[in-house]
Amino acid sequence: MKIGIVDTTFARINMGKIAIEEIEKINKQKIYPPIVWVRRTVPGIKDLAVECQILFEKENCDIILALGMVGPNPIDEMCANQASNAIQLVKLKHSKHIIEVFVHCTESLKNGKFDEKDFYKLTENRTKKHVYNAVNLIYQPDKLVENAGKGLRQGREDEGEIKIR
Amino acid sequence: MKIGIVDTTFARINMGKIAIEEIEKINKQKIYPPIVWVRRTVPGIKDLAVECQILFEKENCDIILALGMVGPNPIDEMCANQASNAIQLVKLKHSKHIIEVFVHCTESLKNGKFDEKDFYKLTENRTKKHVYNAVNLIYQPDKLVENAGKGLRQGREDEGEIKIR
Amino acid sequence: MKIGIVDTTFARINMGKIAIEEIEKINKQKIYPPIVWVRRTVPGIKDLAVECQILFEKENCDIILALGMVGPNPIDEMCANQASNAIQLVKLKHSKHIIEVFVHCTESLKNGKFDEKDFYKLTENRTKKHVYNAVNLIYQPDKLVENAGKGLRQGREDEGEIKIR
Amino acid sequence: MKIGIVDTTFARINMGKIAIEEIEKINKQKIYPPIVWVRRTVPGIKDLAVECQILFEKENCDIILALGMVGPNPIDEMCANQASNAIQLVKLKHSKHIIEVFVHCTESLKNGKFDEKDFYKLTENRTKKHVYNAVNLIYQPDKLVENAGKGLRQGREDEGEIKIR
Amino acid sequence: MKIGIVDTTFARINMGKIAIEEIEKINKQKIYPPIVWVRRTVPGIKDLAVECQILFEKENCDIILALGMVGPNPIDEMCANQASNAIQLVKLKHSKHIIEVFVHCTESLKNGKFDEKDFYKLTENRTKKHVYNAVNLIYQPDKLVENAGKGLRQGREDEGEIKIR
Repeated sequence: MKIGIVDTTFARINMGKIAIEEIEKINKQKIYPPIVWVRRTVPGIKDLAVECQILFEKENCDIILALGMVGPNPIDEMCANQASNAIQLVKLKHSKHIIEVFVHCTESLKNGKFDEKDFYKLTENRTKKHVYNAVNLIYQPDKLVENAGKGLRQGREDEGEIKIR
Repeated sequence: MKIGIVDTTFARINMGKIAIEEIEKINKQKIYPPIVWVRRTVPGIKDLAVECQILFEKENCDIILALGMVGPNPIDEMCANQASNAIQLVKLKHSKHIIEVFVHCTESLKNGKFDEKDFYKLTENRTKKHVYNAVNLIYQPDKLVENAGKGLRQGREDEGEIKIR
Repeated sequence: MKIGIVDTTFARINMGKIAIEEIEKINKQKIYPPIVWVRRTVPGIKDLAVECQILFEKENCDIILALGMVGPNPIDEMCANQASNAIQLVKLKHSKHIIEVFVHCTESLKNGKFDEKDFYKLTENRTKKHVYNAVNLIYQPDKLVENAGKGLRQGREDEGEIKIR
Repeated sequence: MKIGIVDTTFARINMGKIAIEEIEKINKQKIYPPIVWVRRTVPGIKDLAVECQILFEKENCDIILALGMVGPNPIDEMCANQASNAIQLVKLKHSKHIIEVFVHCTESLKNGKFDEKDFYKLTENRTKKHVYNAVNLIYQPDKLVENAGKGLRQGREDEGEIKIR
Repeated sequence: MKIGIVDTTFARINMGKIAIEEIEKINKQKIYPPIVWVRRTVPGIKDLAVECQILFEKENCDIILALGMVGPNPIDEMCANQASNAIQLVKLKHSKHIIEVFVHCTESLKNGKFDEKDFYKLTENRTKKHVYNAVNLIYQPDKLVENAGKGLRQGREDEGEIKIR
């Protein structure tokens, strides 16, 4: 399994590093055949999609993590939307998954103020959990089926399944 | 007829299971030739489109149900929009129907609070009814023509046809 | 001339029937060579685009009317937007016109209440007038050039050309 | 040089006619080799993109003016957005420019009321100026480079370059 | 390395010139093999994408800077969104980076008034910094990896990395 890691210089957290460390941790457990990774960094989230495509084309990755931070302004959200739509196109062109790991600054507002500590935790948690999603999509997709409808969350606590009686 | 079922671990209801049980119920009635299903689960709604495409390409499905839950925040709605646009692209690439079964948390707000029971009912009803839409699209499209303009709804009660005099 | 008619079971008015009756009326007038029609019905507006494409591919239609009703909620408008964008893609893939006949429930609000009678009239008028647009696009495009800038409307009264002395 | 002109019956001003008269005026000046034009009219702005494509494919135009009027309601703006996105796709499919000349009714509100006279002037000015942009793009692209960053406007007065001391 | 520069006559600052001067400055330092540039100017931001594509196809650029100014009105933001989405498509069609350098007039509002001086600085800074991003993407992508998660900004001061303890 070869996984691509693409992150940005715009982000305020080294998301690529968090992902790679988690992959290495998995590799040490020797549960799966070794996971090979390649990493690229681009300026901002709008540059992620084409870099993912280049990784599919030149590095033959099986799956990619597209890691990006979305700033707090409406313009940033518009850019995130453009980036996401382009990432969808790359997935469909290559019939392969790209797991989009976007963290929005607006997710960590406390009383209207940006909480760096909370944002770091959110980013770390979301990135790590999505590493496992990527591994499962390639090595054991049945594990995802087992968790269907379980209200899993990346970044925050799982919400759990709705039980009616 | 081979139907693909794709749902998510993000959803808080096992939508894939509801769909499959309804298909099995239809199979027991032996009205149609047996319906074969394949199921996949992906992390979130943004992962649905490419998985649908993989099912068309590798499993040669005739039609797919894309089952997803949309969270309560504006970001969630933006993600749903991206997911839907990508699903449209998959349909057009393969000239086959994908029935999008999305349930939005905002559909079950009662006095501003999320009503889990109502949401479960909505999800179950929408999923089941769309199973029949899928079956009709493949086995008896004329039944859909008969119901043109009847104000049919999935999730809630039908609204019915507008009669002028 | 072969025209495709696609409508939905979601709509509360049998739009396909209105379109077909108008085509038959035109056929009876024997001004043009007979217009052949094929009709399909799909569940909702998001299913229109791929059905239009199937009609182009399997029925070799020259032009298609995509008939849909848009519900009153923001989610409905988002769905309409997705549907329209996909319909644009089908047009461009086949270099043929699809006339989108969408009626929005919000067009018939009177003092905040939905006026069924007004909505029926609007739908009927828009559908019928667009049948003529379709016929003109195929049989006499010059008639459209004659009407350039005339402020023609479908559903409501024409607004007319702005005359600056 | 062959230029395509596509406008609509929805518009309340004969935009195609304004464009053609300006082209003829340029032809009379005999500065450039004669500009050949072809004209089409479609019902509304959503029909522009595919007609532009048909002109590229069947008439081998070098460039096209897509002329449209956008109504005053939010639905109209949504339609304009869909139309523009589709026009982008046609440009990219053919690697040729289409100059989009859209006039929005909301541009001519004076104290909340639609000012027909102002709107006519705006439309005429924007259409004429974009004819020159089209001619420059084909015959003398260097003239555009000369005007880079000059704050040129179509429809209203130029805003000019920002000079910092 | 061949870099394409595309800007607009709509912008109120000669963005192409700023970019070219920075490239020449880099060339004088003789750190890298000489960077060759080609420049085009189009009317507005909606014309950028296809011009970028023409530069990829006819000039075989390795990377392009798409330079545009976004006006202060909602319509301008909608146009910017359309332009950006089309630029994404060009990147994906050619598997090459286009660095989008857009400056929004709304970024330089001071007490609701447009501050020309601030806007000029912002534009100059963003354009110059993105020239270096382009050079790094081609000549030394590892430098970008070194700066992953550093909170780099173009136009304003860098925000820096979030350090937890």
